[in-house]
Amino acid sequence: MPKRILISNDDGINSEGIHKLHETLKKLGEVYVVAPDRDQSAVSHSLSLFRPLRLDKVSEYVYSVDGTPTDCINLAVNGILRDKKPDLVVSGINKGENLGDDITYSGTVSAAMEGTLLGIPSIAISITGREDFNFDYALHHTDLITKYVLEKGLPKDTLLNVNIPNAPAKEIKGIMITKQGKRLYDEPIVEKVDPRGKKYYWIGGNELGFLDIENSDLVAVREGYVSVTPIGLDLTNFGHIDKLKLDLTKE
Amino acid sequence: MPKRILISNDDGINSEGIHKLHETLKKLGEVYVVAPDRDQSAVSHSLSLFRPLRLDKVSEYVYSVDGTPTDCINLAVNGILRDKKPDLVVSGINKGENLGDDITYSGTVSAAMEGTLLGIPSIAISITGREDFNFDYALHHTDLITKYVLEKGLPKDTLLNVNIPNAPAKEIKGIMITKQGKRLYDEPIVEKVDPRGKKYYWIGGNELGFLDIENSDLVAVREGYVSVTPIGLDLTNFGHIDKLKLDLTKE
Repeated sequence: MPKRILISNDDGINSEGIHKLHETLKKLGEVYVVAPDRDQSAVSHSLSLFRPLRLDKVSEYVYSVDGTPTDCINLAVNGILRDKKPDLVVSGINKGENLGDDITYSGTVSAAMEGTLLGIPSIAISITGREDFNFDYALHHTDLITKYVLEKGLPKDTLLNVNIPNAPAKEIKGIMITKQGKRLYDEPIVEKVDPRGKKYYWIGGNELGFLDIENSDLVAVREGYVSVTPIGLDLTNFGHIDKLKLDLTKE
Repeated sequence: MPKRILISNDDGINSEGIHKLHETLKKLGEVYVVAPDRDQSAVSHSLSLFRPLRLDKVSEYVYSVDGTPTDCINLAVNGILRDKKPDLVVSGINKGENLGDDITYSGTVSAAMEGTLLGIPSIAISITGREDFNFDYALHHTDLITKYVLEKGLPKDTLLNVNIPNAPAKEIKGIMITKQGKRLYDEPIVEKVDPRGKKYYWIGGNELGFLDIENSDLVAVREGYVSVTPIGLDLTNFGHIDKLKLDLTKE
C-alpha cells in the first residue's frame, strides 16, 4: 500500500516552499495538498468556526482553502480524506524559522498540531533566514526525516518541529535533537498617522538575540545543524502542581 | 503601591464577562481594559504582523482594538503601558470552558500566554457551559485566585488556566489543581450550497465526551470543582528526545 501524505503550509498554496515539498514527497507516496489560498503567517492555531469555508480544486490532489492552516488540515482530514485517513501530515517548507516561543504563533507548526490532534503523525518544516531562501537546500533532510516518520511513526500527541539552515546540504553539520529555546525580544509599538489624521499602530518585534541554552533549537541552528524538536500537546506544567495544591486547596 | 492589572478577553469588549471581571478586579488595584472590538473566539495565539491596528479609547483606562486578544496584550504592554508594566494579566471571563486540547485554539488562554511571554504573571478565566451564563457565580473564585497570584506570583513561563462551573458558589465543591485533559471529538465537515449553486463548508465538532483521566481539567469540572491548571510555554516533549537521538543522530 502506498503511503498517503497530506501537506499544507501557512505561506499559501503559491509559495515555492510547498511546491518543492510536494515534488519531493511525491516520490514517497500519494500526496494531497490542501493549503491556504493566501499567506496566513502568524495566524497560530486559529480555527474558523464562525464563517463558512470555500474549497477550490486546483488540480488532481491539490486544493486551496480560504482559511487558516488549521482549517486546511481539519477540512482535509474530516472532509476530502474522510475515508482515506493520511499516514502523515507535513507542513511547510516555511519561509523563515519557527524557533523558541515563536512556535506558539506559528501557522506552520499549528497545521502539524492539528494533524497530531487528529491522530496523524505530523511534521512542521521551516528553512531559516529572512530572504533569499533556497528550498532545494532543505530537500535532503526533508526527505530523510519524512521517511523516518513514515517508517517509525511518532508517539501519540507529539509532532516534530524541524528547522533547516538555509545553506547547501554539505555545509550542514548534521541533525541535532533539541528542546524549545527562548528568544529575547524588544517589541516597540510603532505609531503612525493615516492621511485623515487618525493614528494607527504596528506591532514591532526587534530580535535582541536569544538565551544560550544548551541543546536548544535556536543554538542548534546557529551552530549550523538541522534542529529537530519533539513538541507535545500537553501544556501542563507538572512541576508547579504540588505548590498550587498546597496553596489553593485544603489537601 | 496599588497593583496594576491588565484585563482582556476574546469575546470582545462588550461581553458581560469582561465587565464583571473589571468590576471585581477594580477593588484590587488600578485596572486597564484592552480588549478586541468584536468577538475573536477561536483565533488562538494570532498576532497581526501584516496589518496595522486601530486603538480606540472608550473611557479612562478602557481601550478597544480591532485585533486579536494577543494583539491587545502586546499593544497594551508594549504601547499604552510601556512605562507602567502591569503586575498581572487576567483574560476573561470567557463564555464557555477552555479545557483539554481546546486550549490550543483558545483566544482567552492565548491572551494569558502573551502576558506570560512578556514576563507578567497571567491568568485565563472561563465559565463552563454553552448558554445562560451567570458570571456572578464566577466572581468569588476569580477574586480568590487573582488575589493569590498578585500576592504569590507564578513561576516564569507558567500561567493559570481557570475554569469555573456555571453554578452558584455554594454548589461548587472547591478548587482542584489539574492537568490538561483530552476530549473526544467527531468532526464532520458540513457541506452546504449557496444561492448561486456553489458549495461551501462548515467545520463541525460534535463532542463525544472525554477521556476519564484522573485529576484532569475536564473531570474536575464534571465533578463540580473549579479547575486550575498550571500551563507552561515549553512545549518540548522531553520524553521523546533520547529515542530521536538514537534514531536520527550518530550519538
